[in-house]
Amino acid sequence: MITRDDALARDARDPLADFRDRFHIPSPTVVYLDGNSLGMPPRRTRDRLLEVYDGDWATGLIRSWEHWIDMPQRVGDALAPLIGARPGEVVVHDTTTMNLYQLVHAALALKPHRRVISISEHDFPTDRYVVDGIAAATGRTVRHDLDDLRDVAVVVRSVIDYRTAAVVDVAAETARAREAGAMVLWDLSHAAGAIEIDLHGCGAELAVGCTYKFLNGGPGSPAFSYVTRELHEHIEQPIWGWFATRNQFAMGPVFEPRPDIGRLLLGTPSILALTATEVGVALSAEAGMAAIHAKGTALTAFALELCDQLGLESPTPRDDSRRGNHVALAHPNARQIVADLAARDIIFDFREPNLIRAGCSPLTTRFVDVYDGLMAVDSLAN
Amino acid sequence: MITRDDALARDARDPLADFRDRFHIPSPTVVYLDGNSLGMPPRRTRDRLLEVYDGDWATGLIRSWEHWIDMPQRVGDALAPLIGARPGEVVVHDTTTMNLYQLVHAALALKPHRRVISISEHDFPTDRYVVDGIAAATGRTVRHDLDDLRDVAVVVRSVIDYRTAAVVDVAAETARAREAGAMVLWDLSHAAGAIEIDLHGCGAELAVGCTYKFLNGGPGSPAFSYVTRELHEHIEQPIWGWFATRNQFAMGPVFEPRPDIGRLLLGTPSILALTATEVGVALSAEAGMAAIHAKGTALTAFALELCDQLGLESPTPRDDSRRGNHVALAHPNARQIVADLAARDIIFDFREPNLIRAGCSPLTTRFVDVYDGLMAVDSLAN
Repeated sequence: MITRDDALARDARDPLADFRDRFHIPSPTVVYLDGNSLGMPPRRTRDRLLEVYDGDWATGLIRSWEHWIDMPQRVGDALAPLIGARPGEVVVHDTTTMNLYQLVHAALALKPHRRVISISEHDFPTDRYVVDGIAAATGRTVRHDLDDLRDVAVVVRSVIDYRTAAVVDVAAETARAREAGAMVLWDLSHAAGAIEIDLHGCGAELAVGCTYKFLNGGPGSPAFSYVTRELHEHIEQPIWGWFATRNQFAMGPVFEPRPDIGRLLLGTPSILALTATEVGVALSAEAGMAAIHAKGTALTAFALELCDQLGLESPTPRDDSRRGNHVALAHPNARQIVADLAARDIIFDFREPNLIRAGCSPLTTRFVDVYDGLMAVDSLAN
Repeated sequence: MITRDDALARDARDPLADFRDRFHIPSPTVVYLDGNSLGMPPRRTRDRLLEVYDGDWATGLIRSWEHWIDMPQRVGDALAPLIGARPGEVVVHDTTTMNLYQLVHAALALKPHRRVISISEHDFPTDRYVVDGIAAATGRTVRHDLDDLRDVAVVVRSVIDYRTAAVVDVAAETARAREAGAMVLWDLSHAAGAIEIDLHGCGAELAVGCTYKFLNGGPGSPAFSYVTRELHEHIEQPIWGWFATRNQFAMGPVFEPRPDIGRLLLGTPSILALTATEVGVALSAEAGMAAIHAKGTALTAFALELCDQLGLESPTPRDDSRRGNHVALAHPNARQIVADLAARDIIFDFREPNLIRAGCSPLTTRFVDVYDGLMAVDSLAN
C-alpha cells in the first residue's frame, strides 16, 4: 500500500526537488497537476520582465532592437539541446498553429508530386484543423490511416498523445516514412521539456512544439520550429515576412529568404513573450533533460501505481518508455470532478469526453502533489 | 525665427502635456523622436505585467485562462473606437505580417475571379513581400500601378507612407476601388494612435495595423485586424487554428469557423504581450484621438517650420490634412547623422536610402524635443 509518507520520502530523495523553489508557488496547499497545460511561473521570469522593461525598453528604447533582433534564434539555440537539435536548427516564434502551417506547406513544397497529408483523427485539434485547411487550399487529401503511406507527402504527428500520454517511436516512424518517400512533421508540444528526445539522432527533419507547457514559458509563450540543417536552404513557406528576408533593413524590392532557419520568421516578434520563454527554457536546460525525464517517469509511474491501488482507470501506457509526463484517468464524471477539485485548489484538467489529466511537471510537481491529487479524485470518483 | 523658448511655450500650452508623466522617460536629457518605430513604455505597463504575473499566472495558474481567453477581442474592442471601428470589428493577435497574410487571402476568396493584387512598389516591405508570396502561391499577378484597377481583387495600401508620412484619402480610395469591383486592405501601422480615422465611416472593409508604434504596446506587441461586421460570416482565411473554431474545447472532428471576428485567431496568444498592448491602447483612448491628432499635426507643423528655417529638406507634405505624425528629412549623410546623434541620446531613425525620420508621438513628444532634435540634425547636416 502506498501511503502519503511514501510520497514524502520520494520527494526527500528527489534530486530536482530544489527546482521547485525557483518557481512562484501560489500557496503551500495548492495541488497543481496541470503544468502540461500551463507551466508554473519561474521566479526569474518576473525579474527578467522588469529588467527588460527597465533596462531595455525604458532605457535603450529603439536601440535595444540591436540585441532583441536575434532573440527568436537565441532562444532557439538554448532550446535546441533539449530536443536533440544542433545549433541553428531551432527558431522560437509565433504560435504552434502558425509553425505547423508553415512546415506543412514547406513539406508539400519538398514533395510536390505527392497528394496526401497524413494525420491521426485522434491528434490534437489545431494540428488536424491546420492540415484540413491546407488540404482544402492545395487540393491535397487528408488520410487518417497512418499505416498507409502511399502517395503521402507529409505525416503530421504528435510525439506524445495529448490524451493518453502514449509516446511514438520517433526514430522508427521517421525511418518508416522516409523509406516510403514521405516526411514527418513532429509535434513536440507535450514532449519538449518533458522527455529526452534526440531529433537529429532520430533522423527527424521537421518538428514544431510549444513552450508554455513543460518549458514554463508563460501563457501563450511563442512556439518553435525545428528544421534539420540540411534542409534550410530548401525550405519554402508561404508567408513572406520582412523578418525572414536577407538584409531586412535594406527594405529591398524583392523578398529573398535568409539562408538559415530565420527564413521561418514573419513580423516583429514579441520581446516580452520571448523573454519569459528564454527563462523557462534556461531552467530546463539547467536541470538537464535526463534528470527531467527520469523524474517525470518516476512521477507518472507512482501515479499509475496509486491508480491501481485506488481502482482508478487509466488509458496511459504502463511501459515507462512509452509514456509522457501526464497520466490520464477515465471517469464518466470527469468534467464535474475536475471542476469540483479546482474550487478546492486541486488542479487537474479535463479533456473530452471523459478524461482527467494529471500533469507531472518534473521541475515543480512533487510526489505528494500526485498523492494528494489522486486521493482527492478518488474521494469524488466512487 | 522660431526659438527654443517658442518650443517651451508650446509645451506649456499643450493639453496633452501631462500624459508624458504616464510614461517612463529614461533621462531628462534624452530626445526621443522614434516613437513611430517603438513607442515609449507606459508606467502602468510595468505594474500590469507584475499584476498579471502575480495575480493571474502565479495565483490562478491555468484557471486564469477564463479571463485571458477573450483578450484578443477585448483589446480589439478597446482599440476599435480609435480607428472608427464598431464593437466586435477588431481583433488583436500575432504580427502585422500575419494579419496581412490572412486578410489578403480573405479578400481573394471574396473575389475569386479577379486575378490581380495591387500594391505600390514604395509600400512597406513586409506588405509587398506578403503580397508577392501570395501571388506566387495562388497564381495572381501583382500590379504596382494603383490607378489601374482592372481585374483587381484587392489593393493593399498603407494609410500613411512610412517614409514621407503622406496620408491617403481612405474614403475616396475605398469608394474608387469599390466602384471598380475591388476591395482595399488598409495598413494602419503608422496611422493607429496617430491620426483620427473613421474606418466604418469611410466604408472600409478590411484593415490591419501595428500596436508597438503610436499605441505604445511594447516591442513586438501584437497587431490587429479590422473586418467590417457585414463580412464576418464570409471571411475565409487559410490558417485553421483551434482558437478560431466554434466550441474550441469540444475539440471536435471538424474546423467550424466562429461567426465573429474571432475566426481570424490562430493558436494560443501571448498574454504578456496582450497585457502590454492593452495598457498602451487604453492610454490613447483616454487621451482621445481628436486631441492626439491635433497635437501630432501641431508637432509636425512645428518641425516643418523649423526645417524651413534651417534649410533642411523634407519630402513630408505641408498640407496638415495630408500628413501623419512624423517628418522625414532627406540628407545624403542620413545614416551617419542618425548613428552619431543616437550616441548622444538624440534618437531618430534612418530609412533607406537617405531619410532621417523624426517621429512625433503625441503622448510623449514635446515641442522642445522636436526643437532640440532638429537643431542637432542641423549641426551635423551642413
